[in-house]
Amino acid sequence: LDSSLLRISVHHVSARVPVSAAKLKARRQRWNVRASEMSKNTLNPIRAIVDGMKLTPNPEKPMIALSIGDPTVFGNLPTDDSVLQAMKDAIDSHKFNGYAPSVGYLQSREAVANFYSQAGAPLEAKDVILTSGCSQAIELAISALCNPGDNILVPCPGFSLYKTLAVSVGVQVKFYNLLPEKSWEVDLQHLESLIDDRTTCLIVNNPSNPCGSVFTKEHLRNILAVASRHCIPILADEIYGDMVSQDCEFHSLANLSSDVPILSCGGLAKRWLVPGWRMGWILIHDRNNIFGSEIREALVKLSQRILGACTVVQGALESILNNTQAEFYQSTIGFLKSNSEICFAELSTVPGLNPVMPSGAMYLMVGIEMEHFPEFQNDVDFTERLVTEQSVFCLPATAFEYPNFFRIVVTVPEEMMVEACGRIREFCARHYRPLSQESNDLDQ
Amino acid sequence: LDSSLLRISVHHVSARVPVSAAKLKARRQRWNVRASEMSKNTLNPIRAIVDGMKLTPNPEKPMIALSIGDPTVFGNLPTDDSVLQAMKDAIDSHKFNGYAPSVGYLQSREAVANFYSQAGAPLEAKDVILTSGCSQAIELAISALCNPGDNILVPCPGFSLYKTLAVSVGVQVKFYNLLPEKSWEVDLQHLESLIDDRTTCLIVNNPSNPCGSVFTKEHLRNILAVASRHCIPILADEIYGDMVSQDCEFHSLANLSSDVPILSCGGLAKRWLVPGWRMGWILIHDRNNIFGSEIREALVKLSQRILGACTVVQGALESILNNTQAEFYQSTIGFLKSNSEICFAELSTVPGLNPVMPSGAMYLMVGIEMEHFPEFQNDVDFTERLVTEQSVFCLPATAFEYPNFFRIVVTVPEEMMVEACGRIREFCARHYRPLSQESNDLDQ
Repeated sequence: LDSSLLRISVHHVSARVPVSAAKLKARRQRWNVRASEMSKNTLNPIRAIVDGMKLTPNPEKPMIALSIGDPTVFGNLPTDDSVLQAMKDAIDSHKFNGYAPSVGYLQSREAVANFYSQAGAPLEAKDVILTSGCSQAIELAISALCNPGDNILVPCPGFSLYKTLAVSVGVQVKFYNLLPEKSWEVDLQHLESLIDDRTTCLIVNNPSNPCGSVFTKEHLRNILAVASRHCIPILADEIYGDMVSQDCEFHSLANLSSDVPILSCGGLAKRWLVPGWRMGWILIHDRNNIFGSEIREALVKLSQRILGACTVVQGALESILNNTQAEFYQSTIGFLKSNSEICFAELSTVPGLNPVMPSGAMYLMVGIEMEHFPEFQNDVDFTERLVTEQSVFCLPATAFEYPNFFRIVVTVPEEMMVEACGRIREFCARHYRPLSQESNDLDQ
Repeated sequence: LDSSLLRISVHHVSARVPVSAAKLKARRQRWNVRASEMSKNTLNPIRAIVDGMKLTPNPEKPMIALSIGDPTVFGNLPTDDSVLQAMKDAIDSHKFNGYAPSVGYLQSREAVANFYSQAGAPLEAKDVILTSGCSQAIELAISALCNPGDNILVPCPGFSLYKTLAVSVGVQVKFYNLLPEKSWEVDLQHLESLIDDRTTCLIVNNPSNPCGSVFTKEHLRNILAVASRHCIPILADEIYGDMVSQDCEFHSLANLSSDVPILSCGGLAKRWLVPGWRMGWILIHDRNNIFGSEIREALVKLSQRILGACTVVQGALESILNNTQAEFYQSTIGFLKSNSEICFAELSTVPGLNPVMPSGAMYLMVGIEMEHFPEFQNDVDFTERLVTEQSVFCLPATAFEYPNFFRIVVTVPEEMMVEACGRIREFCARHYRPLSQESNDLDQ
């Protein structure tokens, strides 16, 4: 403490009341309230990047946001009426206003267990922990498995929350590469090379945000083999589970493994199109009793810090899972598939762009051949100018630790998707520059 | 690592595929998944104590639980119909299914700001952060203000969550005494003596769980003076705000202070009788700009780790706050007051017990003159036997770091309260032993 400050403080105090030396010591202060290290280490790359962009749309063109990972914003993908009715029934029952157990109502956990149980990965109520959205599921899983100084393996490109949550509690993040040329499969050799004795968790996100990829059974088995060889438990982010196109199949990791212990995180958000309701869960798959009671107890304890999901949604859960008709899911999936095809077909003929056709989730990644767009430094620059000129906003994939790509959300109404793709084509045509090498090739 | 284990592992691996030395090194493992330190440090004293008790009710008497801090369990305190209608309207609007901002919808924050704004403590939407229940509000506030190694000042007796949350993130807890003989006012001298240069937060819980006390304006000013002298921000847990008997008044701390920065935590749980809905908030009071943008930004950042409250409840919030009639609150408060009086009148004439009359919240603390119950070692022992013999369960106040008291929840139906008090009287009469000193006094 500055000594002149101390003198002033002492003088100020002693002028009013006589105080003991001990009190004086305590009073040697000014207001100096500082934010915690944890809050400073809680970084949101999407916000950091988007807030740093100059997003001034062209006033002559209405804005089209292909950036928002919320399927409800355009009103074209409403949830099912049966889902809403289940909520109103839960309210009318007057049974779901009090506290639930911190891991959720037994009956609701049982409903989730029944819904997701598979021959190769059976579930009981005790294997289900209900959470406040899939985010809390991921948070609890990381917090249960990792200490500060440990590291986790995270896909690149990948959903930014993994890093946000890990870094804020002192856990290191190591990115393993996904391969766009192999439909975003994991670079298994790279993955394996990152493992060390402080690696406590492998995060696998399938279907993927932002890639829209869906792993084959064989590829999932290869990932499991790596985890098994190195004895690394898996956090399977399967929030987009079953949101895959009809010509493709979703396999949960747990159903393909008999030894690797898996915490599968999911929720109502995407498949039932109600992300705001914050209804998530962890499914504990541990057939070889490797997690044992220790990790189960850790999850229960951590769930008691703040109680989880809203009881009304918990009360509606059994009905939502059991009474939503197959047509509802099929209709959503059909729409996403059709919109993906429109978008892919359009952009794959745009010189300078390399879209990767997705098979699930609700995203499509587009590579930018930056060498053909010398005006722009990177994907952030590129997407910023796309807003300025064409009023189309796509999230630069730097937000997913993957520069020179951008992500398109395919939930927007079809006519908006068509219009947006047309504008992207126009934008690229205007800024595309052939390489001199290519010009030479053409000349020859 | 055990070398024999290594040999087995090497043998096992090399029998199948040739591998590089580097890979072998990484493979020197067995499954050994351990729970994190944080999960091990997440302690729930209520669970630890209750789970350790032998709770075997007397089969001849139906169980009466006076232990559950959930006003909804007996069905005698339903929420208002207008509250349920607001939820159904929010569902029918189809407007509240998508993601809300991590700090909540602007309109809902505005509604909370308007509802709680006072002349001495004005609030705007920007001063409100919506959270998943008051628990998350307290968690965010502690996480924003405190680093590992810092300490916070917590009331004793007090709600156990403060310690649970603080200890789990490495923050030390110092308990300041409340004085039962002064209606549980703070021992200000003791409070002040605990402050050191690592004290980053003073938690004040008013009205109090478990005490049911309501501080006077003068006493709150004295607490503020301590905080102001030592420049310690306050976390005001005011979840029971306005739940005070008619002959008493609730003063929010913020309205009495112009300098001390205060995070006031509250929610729908108690006053609107829907604790399961997990709708909480932080009100940021900082008229002298001491928190400044730093603490506000910290709270926003931390709110992005897991998104907060269910959007349906957020959507209903404005209507819940503005359209619930005064009669609803008055009826709840009247009932709690009447039940408290019944309980206090009954137990204050029981030899060996010293109930403290509450003025708010929904609790009543009862002191046990342990010297008159030599059969029992402590409050845990006492309340355990009360279950065995009389099928009445009260929470031993050891759960609130305050031995030799027990807490009664006054939300149970009146006839149950009367019956329970009668049984407690019978139990005490059976086990009460006059002190030999007193016998002598009587003889003289």
